[in-house]
Amino acid sequence: MLKTTINYKLIMRIIGHLLIIEAIFMLLSLPFSVYYQETPITLSNILDLKGDFSAILVAALITIVFGLLTHFLTRKVDKKSMSKKESYFIVSLSWVFISLFGALPFYLSGQIPSFTDAFFETMSGFTTTGASILSDIEAMPKALLFWRALTHWIGGMGIIVLSLAILPILGIGGMQLFAAEVPGPIPDKIHPRIKDTAKRLWVIYVALTVLETILLMFGEMNFFDAVCHAFATMATGGFSTQNASVALYSPYTQYIIILFMIFAGTNFTIHYLALHGHFTRVWKNEEFRYYIFGILGITIIISLFLVLNANMNVEKAFRDSLFQIVSIITTTGFVTADYLAWPGYLWIIIFLLMFVGGSAGSTGGGVKVMRQIILLKNCAMELKRMVHPNAILPVRFNNKSVSQDIVFNILAFFMFYMLIVGVSIVVMMVVGLNFETSVGAVAASLGNIGPGIGHVGPVDNYSFIPDVGKWFLSFLMLLGRLELFTVLILLSPAFYKR
Amino acid sequence: MLKTTINYKLIMRIIGHLLIIEAIFMLLSLPFSVYYQETPITLSNILDLKGDFSAILVAALITIVFGLLTHFLTRKVDKKSMSKKESYFIVSLSWVFISLFGALPFYLSGQIPSFTDAFFETMSGFTTTGASILSDIEAMPKALLFWRALTHWIGGMGIIVLSLAILPILGIGGMQLFAAEVPGPIPDKIHPRIKDTAKRLWVIYVALTVLETILLMFGEMNFFDAVCHAFATMATGGFSTQNASVALYSPYTQYIIILFMIFAGTNFTIHYLALHGHFTRVWKNEEFRYYIFGILGITIIISLFLVLNANMNVEKAFRDSLFQIVSIITTTGFVTADYLAWPGYLWIIIFLLMFVGGSAGSTGGGVKVMRQIILLKNCAMELKRMVHPNAILPVRFNNKSVSQDIVFNILAFFMFYMLIVGVSIVVMMVVGLNFETSVGAVAASLGNIGPGIGHVGPVDNYSFIPDVGKWFLSFLMLLGRLELFTVLILLSPAFYKR
Repeated sequence: MLKTTINYKLIMRIIGHLLIIEAIFMLLSLPFSVYYQETPITLSNILDLKGDFSAILVAALITIVFGLLTHFLTRKVDKKSMSKKESYFIVSLSWVFISLFGALPFYLSGQIPSFTDAFFETMSGFTTTGASILSDIEAMPKALLFWRALTHWIGGMGIIVLSLAILPILGIGGMQLFAAEVPGPIPDKIHPRIKDTAKRLWVIYVALTVLETILLMFGEMNFFDAVCHAFATMATGGFSTQNASVALYSPYTQYIIILFMIFAGTNFTIHYLALHGHFTRVWKNEEFRYYIFGILGITIIISLFLVLNANMNVEKAFRDSLFQIVSIITTTGFVTADYLAWPGYLWIIIFLLMFVGGSAGSTGGGVKVMRQIILLKNCAMELKRMVHPNAILPVRFNNKSVSQDIVFNILAFFMFYMLIVGVSIVVMMVVGLNFETSVGAVAASLGNIGPGIGHVGPVDNYSFIPDVGKWFLSFLMLLGRLELFTVLILLSPAFYKR
Repeated sequence: MLKTTINYKLIMRIIGHLLIIEAIFMLLSLPFSVYYQETPITLSNILDLKGDFSAILVAALITIVFGLLTHFLTRKVDKKSMSKKESYFIVSLSWVFISLFGALPFYLSGQIPSFTDAFFETMSGFTTTGASILSDIEAMPKALLFWRALTHWIGGMGIIVLSLAILPILGIGGMQLFAAEVPGPIPDKIHPRIKDTAKRLWVIYVALTVLETILLMFGEMNFFDAVCHAFATMATGGFSTQNASVALYSPYTQYIIILFMIFAGTNFTIHYLALHGHFTRVWKNEEFRYYIFGILGITIIISLFLVLNANMNVEKAFRDSLFQIVSIITTTGFVTADYLAWPGYLWIIIFLLMFVGGSAGSTGGGVKVMRQIILLKNCAMELKRMVHPNAILPVRFNNKSVSQDIVFNILAFFMFYMLIVGVSIVVMMVVGLNFETSVGAVAASLGNIGPGIGHVGPVDNYSFIPDVGKWFLSFLMLLGRLELFTVLILLSPAFYKR
């Protein structure tokens, strides 16, 4: 045993409670089993564990029982001893436990016969990555596809609390900057209490999901497809209910999804401000401006090339580039075009966008637009500092000086990011992937995107990767989703010292 | 005209002087023309500009005339107005001018008919990169091959002054750290005056080159091959006189070259200390220990795999891995084995080593071992800082705290490095290279290595790349060789403001 003051019982108690909530969410998939009846729901089928209804029910029961057991076994825990250290554990372990139990419906139904695959798919869901091992998505029972989409949506809810309430307190990777400097919850007193802030942003999250579902139903989607795609969009997940992803749908549907991907990749406090009519403050937000103009600028460049060099129709070129760019930059991972079929100098831009990511405080993953802005500004500033070595030249963000500690932390974040990318490419090549596929799988998993380059491109899936590789990529998804530090700190010896 | 106090005349005057020195070096190639007489040296051949003797002579004359003209046109210059700003220009432009004039012998002789190719080859020489556009090296006249090797050696001399005398004063990328904190010239008072320090290290550089030449002649090499390979080794350049590079030679010769590559990639103050018997201080040098043990560790891993998986003879496996690893980490670029023919999980390690580079204060290029150590230590420290947010936890190097400004500068250096890698990959793909080749060409050029991955691997050359690509890669070589900032600062608007 390590000599430590970490309250493991408290950690398990909270995870137990989260599992009970997860089980309740699982049960939400059952109406689809009943409605579609892909396997007749009979008592004998249920007892034989046959069909999706039975699998989901049993999975939910196992999860509830485990949650309740944990609850009762940790009854005597001291709740007041909750500190930062426990929060790191809770955040990291909750994603692992929720994915382990969340894999049960897929595994028990026999729809994903390998537990590795089922875990990969579920971790990919909860981390809102959207990398899939399924080669025939449409063959899966609707209720399980609903649960698959729901893992995204639950993951997205988790990320909103995490990035807006927990990470700023832990001081991870400049997230405190976003909370403290951006017109956001704390300084602008949207509501002094973090818990309520998270709840208010959840209301926005739910409202946007409902709105997207309705708008998608105005197109060709039925309720089931609409709600699944809305879940995957708002969480910047990317699981579709169709083998062809969003390419199957009309331009109207594609534009709706583009719009909501942009919403999902936006800092949720921006939505809050916009809803309350503070448009000037929305516009003054630097990250938001870079995010919007960045998307537009790159879309114009790529559409131009597609029109001129690939002789594509103007509207289709614009729509295809906008969709793909928004999908990658927000780390959603829906596809309407195989960007790897574009000329190399175009898809390489898409690939590099995998290292940008969504806005801080959105459901998007990756390095984040805010961090990239600060990194680039610091680069320019460093040249200025060399010209004027005695001047104090801080980086400015949203018209405020950023403390050196925060810039330092963001630089270390980027360094860790690249280091993990490098080591992971070696691991994937040891596993047997080629260079391009290794680079693509690592960038797409760590960045919580889904499609990468090489053999994990937009029209491929991850099923061919050996099991070891799948577990490793699942770990990368977790690492990326939790902003690296939350997980890495648990590996630091200093963490366990008194 | 920009409103600036930059003394351009002084800059040109110094470059003019350097060109005169370059012309004298060019003339050193002539004895080989005379000795080998590959084209008979007759008056008519000289007047017809036929053969290598004539080309070198004319090139040297053009260079001298240009140098003298510059000298006389800038006679009235105020030498005392020399400031940091002028030094950035002098350093960057001198490499460009010396390469432009240095390309003349290849171009005028018709041996490299395209000026782009001749410039690429020469910039690759002076930046000690070693990337070549020649497909048949052995077909080139000996005197020109000597000049080709000499460009490396002159480049290496330049780098020693630059990294030991100029960059620390300019405060570039932690080089001041190396000068101020490592047992080196300034704090240990090897000699208080930088100029003399550089001269003393030049003596070591010359002595090691002579020693290597002699040792190589004990093997199967004649004087010509020995001296050319010694030039290329000590400068960590990599141009060989043979199409098969060093693979042609005996194990004895290969081990000699390995040893001197290790010397060349070592901080030259380490050699100075060792020569004066300060072995404890050599051993206490952190960068040196990481460098040596890093090479050994990776060699053991790769040899083991080659023995076990590729069934290779133990000595050959050890020699091949040691040679390739030392060649890449010191950024020399000699080859004795096609590492791209090894399993992917082995060559990917070689590829990642391209981002490490030699020691600071050596002739090696790349990011540098010292910077990588500080970057990694800062990563570990950042985790510790998150556990103890109120503690002051500086990075320690050679048992001294490193100032936050220096760590900041190194982090910005790395950020710039990766940013340039990203943008350059896009450029090379626009030029028409595939992903793997683009990545390889960029890493190998920016890191001043030579061989990369893809179609610019150890058994390939750069001739197939379109002209635009060659000019761009030449720029990357310059950028990498001058530690990025020296060139980038010239692109910063702040630089030109009063």
